[in-house]
Amino acid sequence: MVKSPKESLTILTDIVLPGETNPLGNLFGGELLARMDRACSIAARRHSRQIVVTASVNHVAFSRAVPVGSVVSIEAKVSRAFNSSMEIYVDVWIEDRESQDKTKANEGIYTFVAVDNTGKPVTVPKIVPETDLEKERYNGALRRKQLSLILSGKMKPSEATELKALFQ
Amino acid sequence: MVKSPKESLTILTDIVLPGETNPLGNLFGGELLARMDRACSIAARRHSRQIVVTASVNHVAFSRAVPVGSVVSIEAKVSRAFNSSMEIYVDVWIEDRESQDKTKANEGIYTFVAVDNTGKPVTVPKIVPETDLEKERYNGALRRKQLSLILSGKMKPSEATELKALFQ
Amino acid sequence: MVKSPKESLTILTDIVLPGETNPLGNLFGGELLARMDRACSIAARRHSRQIVVTASVNHVAFSRAVPVGSVVSIEAKVSRAFNSSMEIYVDVWIEDRESQDKTKANEGIYTFVAVDNTGKPVTVPKIVPETDLEKERYNGALRRKQLSLILSGKMKPSEATELKALFQ
Amino acid sequence: MVKSPKESLTILTDIVLPGETNPLGNLFGGELLARMDRACSIAARRHSRQIVVTASVNHVAFSRAVPVGSVVSIEAKVSRAFNSSMEIYVDVWIEDRESQDKTKANEGIYTFVAVDNTGKPVTVPKIVPETDLEKERYNGALRRKQLSLILSGKMKPSEATELKALFQ
Amino acid sequence: MVKSPKESLTILTDIVLPGETNPLGNLFGGELLARMDRACSIAARRHSRQIVVTASVNHVAFSRAVPVGSVVSIEAKVSRAFNSSMEIYVDVWIEDRESQDKTKANEGIYTFVAVDNTGKPVTVPKIVPETDLEKERYNGALRRKQLSLILSGKMKPSEATELKALFQ
Amino acid sequence: MVKSPKESLTILTDIVLPGETNPLGNLFGGELLARMDRACSIAARRHSRQIVVTASVNHVAFSRAVPVGSVVSIEAKVSRAFNSSMEIYVDVWIEDRESQDKTKANEGIYTFVAVDNTGKPVTVPKIVPETDLEKERYNGALRRKQLSLILSGKMKPSEATELKALFQ
Repeated sequence: MVKSPKESLTILTDIVLPGETNPLGNLFGGELLARMDRACSIAARRHSRQIVVTASVNHVAFSRAVPVGSVVSIEAKVSRAFNSSMEIYVDVWIEDRESQDKTKANEGIYTFVAVDNTGKPVTVPKIVPETDLEKERYNGALRRKQLSLILSGKMKPSEATELKALFQ
Repeated sequence: MVKSPKESLTILTDIVLPGETNPLGNLFGGELLARMDRACSIAARRHSRQIVVTASVNHVAFSRAVPVGSVVSIEAKVSRAFNSSMEIYVDVWIEDRESQDKTKANEGIYTFVAVDNTGKPVTVPKIVPETDLEKERYNGALRRKQLSLILSGKMKPSEATELKALFQ
Repeated sequence: MVKSPKESLTILTDIVLPGETNPLGNLFGGELLARMDRACSIAARRHSRQIVVTASVNHVAFSRAVPVGSVVSIEAKVSRAFNSSMEIYVDVWIEDRESQDKTKANEGIYTFVAVDNTGKPVTVPKIVPETDLEKERYNGALRRKQLSLILSGKMKPSEATELKALFQ
Repeated sequence: MVKSPKESLTILTDIVLPGETNPLGNLFGGELLARMDRACSIAARRHSRQIVVTASVNHVAFSRAVPVGSVVSIEAKVSRAFNSSMEIYVDVWIEDRESQDKTKANEGIYTFVAVDNTGKPVTVPKIVPETDLEKERYNGALRRKQLSLILSGKMKPSEATELKALFQ
Repeated sequence: MVKSPKESLTILTDIVLPGETNPLGNLFGGELLARMDRACSIAARRHSRQIVVTASVNHVAFSRAVPVGSVVSIEAKVSRAFNSSMEIYVDVWIEDRESQDKTKANEGIYTFVAVDNTGKPVTVPKIVPETDLEKERYNGALRRKQLSLILSGKMKPSEATELKALFQ
Repeated sequence: MVKSPKESLTILTDIVLPGETNPLGNLFGGELLARMDRACSIAARRHSRQIVVTASVNHVAFSRAVPVGSVVSIEAKVSRAFNSSMEIYVDVWIEDRESQDKTKANEGIYTFVAVDNTGKPVTVPKIVPETDLEKERYNGALRRKQLSLILSGKMKPSEATELKALFQ
């Protein structure tokens, strides 16, 4: 079976209360990482229809602080599916109350694995990207997977053919 | 200015963790009321582009327990705008992991008021319902407002013309 | 068996810490709804001596903001018992530190149902109101129950005899 | 001015949710200490009508585990007032759902100090105990205060006249 | 078997976020008591290698407020082992960001009991103090145990030989 | 000024309570990410003695689930300092209650930036690694920084000289 990224789209819109801030009065980074993890796990579950567990956080860039009182929209979507693992791309937006303009606050990449009741990995459906952005993220996913394997010592740089091509 | 209900649509999709349950292993009612309040306040803010405060909870019916591990989608939309107050309708859905079927878990009606920096009520845009459900909720809103005023002792039953019509 | 409302009186006095506030520095509405739900569930349990679950929130009016640092007293009492459901009235008071004067901050009406271990509704004791306020709330409970049934589409307005009388 | 202990009585009745337990399924000790601290601070505030801060926890004995789902009643009352400090006695009760019998789960003694806006200690009203239990606790308070001063190195055992008498 | 206090040393370094403060902007006393309880339970577990439960809080002195944004180091160590109970001493330090100097914020003494799966107390290893401070705390532990037994009515002052010696 | 990694070592040892778990009964991934963020921010603060903010999470691998009741030790240490940014390596250990053996549960790499009161980046001290592991992590840090810049579109692969060398 083949699915599209938009079938797993998960939206978690919420406000920032004082009990969720850091001493500078902005959304505490750890709390944001937790909310992103929740949204990504739902996207992975919607794609696979299986139990899913966090395998790794591949990259999260905090480009803009999120002040108390903000409305924050977290949007997660599976960007590529491998055998039993899925890469999820998550975008975080803040919206301005008066203009309703949305600004990107940060962006993250998580990997989840689908498992059965005994914790054994199970196969997930393939994915076919549709929009330009989805295609770009789909294409980069294999390179990021190789990077992750190298960083965790499970692959040698010389074996990472996709990645090597990038630097030549 | 006139707006449509869909412009204020707010989606808060999240999972139910054990730390958010009651002793029966289901989502704790108070936690659900809090999540609904968060979603409704964002919908009211999106419609009015003002600071908003909860004025009342008009009705929340718990028709189905939400077990730990569920994916819960809270969808809030302004159903009718009065001078400075707005009625928000919020629907809560649980989705089945395997079939992805959605079941209604409960439904609620909240009222928010738009205020300026000093806490003084300010005017909000009118709303024009589009779908059949939006029209039905729009039409019922005035009756519910009269009910709320009667319950809080601010209106006499004899003055509630919309409501009286219902019983005649 | 017949009981009086005061046998179920439940008092939950607590302070408001910064981690429980909204961005305006007042007790977050959702947190207050959760505390009220906790107090009401204990009152319903004390009356019925059974497991109880939230059936609906019928009305909560937020008449006064509760600033951080306040001492908040939540007082819940069963106002009327039906077959297996109970209406609980809950009053929320703030007390002034220097004068110790108490001000009503808000008021709510919740409905709980008593169930056995399998979740099946069970009969609860009748209630006989004693004070004037208890009598007034007892008398209004049937009208509110009919309203709730109408709002949830389980009763036709024409069948709500108690309620109809109010508007004639 | 002279006050009685019952004027400061503070009742915090609440349930135990799964998110407040330890791995054995009972109310987590740290959470209970926090709830006791909240109740004691309100009792001290009611007696003094001043800002109050925790000075010390003198003794808390955990005699009985509190299982998830329990209804817990925390009752705090000022037992003795000194110049600017107050000793607060707090009793914790669990009630059985079916019989409504109350069992003592634990008991604690806290000390609070009344301060003005600048944090400087201010005088608090004297207290006159009324019941036998209040008198017993009042009489023991001076010995406990001396003990606390000895434990924190602010008094020599030889100066603790009240306490010495106990051991002779 | 005999162990030294340093084998149970437990360090819990953490920051103070706004959601953990009291209305004065300092770490909420109840939250600090909970963190101390967590650190002490780990020290007791490390010493006994058994399941442990809080038996009592013997003394906690709050000598210095801990402002939001502080780095707080909680250091817990078993000070003396009895048959199945252990006294744990816990020191709380705040560190200055610029100078990195550490100041003592407060200090506490907790008692834990080691139990088997059925909740029955089990024997724990003896302890031999090494540093001067460890020896001082070891020597005081028996007096504090007698005090605790007297306060909870389980020992008569006349039987507390260690304690009596202090006052003669 | 030059410092060593061990000067920033931060230890956050804590237990896993039921309120911090996912529906499988293990420590919730988002909660672990938050605890790691807290420990890393303290390590960065200890190295720089400045206000620090999270810039990115570069990699976190979840290799082993952490069951409820576990004792978890989070150890964070600055691995390399650049101009105003610092890479922090964080290791997460679970310890077995009976054997006291420690197992690696996961590992993460975070980047923090030191800022002044106005949020402007400020220079931080250089670091000189001492142990073999510290040297290995120090040497890899530049490659990871280049990777992070490429992933966020701030550097072209052709400019990443350190990284290119890895694949040739």
